[in-house]
Amino acid sequence: MQESEFSLINRLFTRTDSSRNPFTRLGIGDDASIHHLEPGMELVVSTDSSLQGVHWPDDFPLDRAADRAVCSALSDMAAMGAETLCIWLNVMAEHSRAVERMAQGAMAALKRYDVELAGGDTCRSAINALSVSVAGQLPEGTAMRRDSAVSSDNIWLAGRVGWHALGLQQWLNGRQDGAFVPCFEVITPLLQTGIKLRQAGVGCCIDISDGLLQDVGHIAFASGVGMDIEITSVPGWELLCQAVGEDSASALVAHGGEDYALLFTAPDDVSLPDKLAVCIGHCRSGKGVSLLLDGEKTDIEKAGFDHFR
Amino acid sequence: MQESEFSLINRLFTRTDSSRNPFTRLGIGDDASIHHLEPGMELVVSTDSSLQGVHWPDDFPLDRAADRAVCSALSDMAAMGAETLCIWLNVMAEHSRAVERMAQGAMAALKRYDVELAGGDTCRSAINALSVSVAGQLPEGTAMRRDSAVSSDNIWLAGRVGWHALGLQQWLNGRQDGAFVPCFEVITPLLQTGIKLRQAGVGCCIDISDGLLQDVGHIAFASGVGMDIEITSVPGWELLCQAVGEDSASALVAHGGEDYALLFTAPDDVSLPDKLAVCIGHCRSGKGVSLLLDGEKTDIEKAGFDHFR
Repeated sequence: MQESEFSLINRLFTRTDSSRNPFTRLGIGDDASIHHLEPGMELVVSTDSSLQGVHWPDDFPLDRAADRAVCSALSDMAAMGAETLCIWLNVMAEHSRAVERMAQGAMAALKRYDVELAGGDTCRSAINALSVSVAGQLPEGTAMRRDSAVSSDNIWLAGRVGWHALGLQQWLNGRQDGAFVPCFEVITPLLQTGIKLRQAGVGCCIDISDGLLQDVGHIAFASGVGMDIEITSVPGWELLCQAVGEDSASALVAHGGEDYALLFTAPDDVSLPDKLAVCIGHCRSGKGVSLLLDGEKTDIEKAGFDHFR
Repeated sequence: MQESEFSLINRLFTRTDSSRNPFTRLGIGDDASIHHLEPGMELVVSTDSSLQGVHWPDDFPLDRAADRAVCSALSDMAAMGAETLCIWLNVMAEHSRAVERMAQGAMAALKRYDVELAGGDTCRSAINALSVSVAGQLPEGTAMRRDSAVSSDNIWLAGRVGWHALGLQQWLNGRQDGAFVPCFEVITPLLQTGIKLRQAGVGCCIDISDGLLQDVGHIAFASGVGMDIEITSVPGWELLCQAVGEDSASALVAHGGEDYALLFTAPDDVSLPDKLAVCIGHCRSGKGVSLLLDGEKTDIEKAGFDHFR
């Protein structure tokens, strides 16, 4: 006899190794989870879906796909500077074996970052997919936002860009042992970096999920500033150039998504922890984002990932 | 030129007619939404997915499907007795026209219940689907839960059961003008009823989404009680019998899902608002759920909806 939906959920989504987070007063098992927020704290919430054939290749293992889906959602907490509290997980699966694989991957990611699963649902679907909603907390008024860059700010980057896209290219080209493939297989949300930036007083940050140029454009638009970014200052630029040449490296840096680096702006007098990030450019008055190569403006245009173009 | 993902999102998911809920300090447009909870209040959160071909027939209009998806998620707030605050919405769509239809339906439901859209994402998918996460609030310690029935409680039902399943049968049989079809097309979350029950001191409630017998079984299991329910006491029993005969009516009442009635238990001395619900049975010591027909135990067994059986 096939295992029932409810037995599957009980078996796969229960962690016995985690102490309950004080935020959660009632977790999985009722119509809703129940939570308590300490006075003086704000709640931040984000949600994202990941679909087979869209967010991961059909031949990519489902457990690792689910791990990636959870980690990409956690990255939004890093971008806000929040302490992650818990997630709620929607699992859409072709069959119960797919539920099992995705549960294993999701629970592994949650264990790695000590994040609680507070609820969710599981249903049969023609394609394997997950939606991950995540909650975090931070002191009131301290969230890093897209709309708070000013024209005198410097632009900083913590983490890599372009490496994930190159790893994905290698995977899709059948080079599953390619040097950059691990950068595509595993997503590392920069949770501690995000918290440290918020604590250092950084007010404006975004995570690079859809491509540097597109995501930086969100800051430029929301904050009403222009932004100049020097491509060669991006960490690992030389390695990318060695791997694929300067033209391809430029495109990877400009448009490659899903590295989940944190791009932030800060005034000259902000004191950042050592080696947390590198300065890659400057805001200015005006609008739009320009990419510079050795100080010369390039003609690289906005072309990040868009689901409906 | 095709409209971009971001333009689509801005155009379709922005409401200009709603005053912002004090819970939400920053809504759509950043990496996460930001929220404030009043002291003394608890947050309740639930999430559910709805998929074309699973939760609605392929020939059902997408706007109405999205309306149903939102309303079924809101029903979990009714079951907890919470005041609904906002939702976060994942839209998975075959093409931009499908995004548009689903957005119209989702926004119509949110407008009807004055619920804010606080965030979400939109992506291309091989099948149309939505995940809806919803948050509500209630005073600390007052949530209606599945685990608080006691063996001396009466069992009450607010709303119908079986009507949705019959409407769906009629739709699938090509009788789209069937008398019960409207019960399938539109989901009505009993939000005000849930709040009134919680305010009246009701401690144990569930919404009937997967079938009466299965959902009541969750209460019996979580609370460690047995439960006897008289089928003929269920509101609209005679109408169902007239429509399909007693045997089919029994099966519809026992197993028909998605009516989103509220089933709750309460001691004799709880004073309920007039006509809010009808008493349909009694808890007892022991375990399991029995369905009675005119006082005689039936042999109807648990067979609610299960995605993986």
